[in-house]
Amino acid sequence: MDVNILLFPDFETLDAFGPVEVLGSIEQYKLRYISVSGGTITSRQGIRVLTESIKDADSYGILLIPGGRGTRSLVNDIKFIEKLSDMVIKSKYCLSVCTGSALLAKTGLLDNKEATSNKKAFEWVKSINTDVLWIEKARWVADQKYYTSSGVSAGIDMALGFVAERFGMNEAQKIAEQIEYIWNSDPNNDPFAV
Amino acid sequence: MDVNILLFPDFETLDAFGPVEVLGSIEQYKLRYISVSGGTITSRQGIRVLTESIKDADSYGILLIPGGRGTRSLVNDIKFIEKLSDMVIKSKYCLSVCTGSALLAKTGLLDNKEATSNKKAFEWVKSINTDVLWIEKARWVADQKYYTSSGVSAGIDMALGFVAERFGMNEAQKIAEQIEYIWNSDPNNDPFAV
Repeated sequence: MDVNILLFPDFETLDAFGPVEVLGSIEQYKLRYISVSGGTITSRQGIRVLTESIKDADSYGILLIPGGRGTRSLVNDIKFIEKLSDMVIKSKYCLSVCTGSALLAKTGLLDNKEATSNKKAFEWVKSINTDVLWIEKARWVADQKYYTSSGVSAGIDMALGFVAERFGMNEAQKIAEQIEYIWNSDPNNDPFAV
Repeated sequence: MDVNILLFPDFETLDAFGPVEVLGSIEQYKLRYISVSGGTITSRQGIRVLTESIKDADSYGILLIPGGRGTRSLVNDIKFIEKLSDMVIKSKYCLSVCTGSALLAKTGLLDNKEATSNKKAFEWVKSINTDVLWIEKARWVADQKYYTSSGVSAGIDMALGFVAERFGMNEAQKIAEQIEYIWNSDPNNDPFAV
């Protein structure tokens, strides 16, 4: 199955590449780095990444949406949100990290579903769509095919939680050990909530 | 000051981009992604990153050396090790993550200095240079200008520790909070040591 990592200008590096480190350990997953038009996408931390175009992606896989400063303008980019909607609908699972959930919320596909986001940007994210059942105190939230995480590093915890549900706790713990990551495996344990 | 992130084929994604997330928060630091010849470098997880050539880098800054499968052949690449030596000597600080310390050890510049590495690859790393004072139980080790960390995620803890020493604990804790990272701030607390 393809894991499509959707990149855009000024995405937050670890939002995308933390979960990539986890999901990249799953043999059945093929990681692909995509963007609306393909080409080079630069992260907030200046990493220039080569991407494939959305139109060349197999959308029927897992979609990963990072957050970051770039989301602030993208929520108002109707063409982007339309293309995102199309991918989200087709995806088998849709994961977002940090303010990536603002983009996801903007599609309307999170309406009446539980979700979370970065604690420092929570009020802004909520304001994007108040029909989402926003949960402030959560490391990550799973509702049907949607997995949304809190800020940046929470994406790693969520990715391990996602792996645990698909492949068992042993597999998730094995990956955490391999990458020497101290996993916060309880989605309700959110030390950064106010 | 430049932070030169030295990339090579099959580098481990989070080894490089975990510390990048932390060091990228420091206004005084300019992050640059470099490789021996410049051009596109692909990580173990398939991320294709555009890099500048080592010869265009200002070597008198901070050098970050990730680990990963690519180190296994690079330790035997004499030309690479020579170029690395040159950068390491000029650097103000030199940080390595995971098996990046094997490359650093190969230069001889770690001789009689304390260092650590990934726990799963420790025997191999030690075998590269037995004149290094290898410390098995450590999340990270600082000896003069050299900072070496354990596997993958330990690089984030080390980067925050490095920031704490340069800019104070408050700054490090502020960054950890911003990226919602549960920081293991004690370099001696290594839950992955045997």
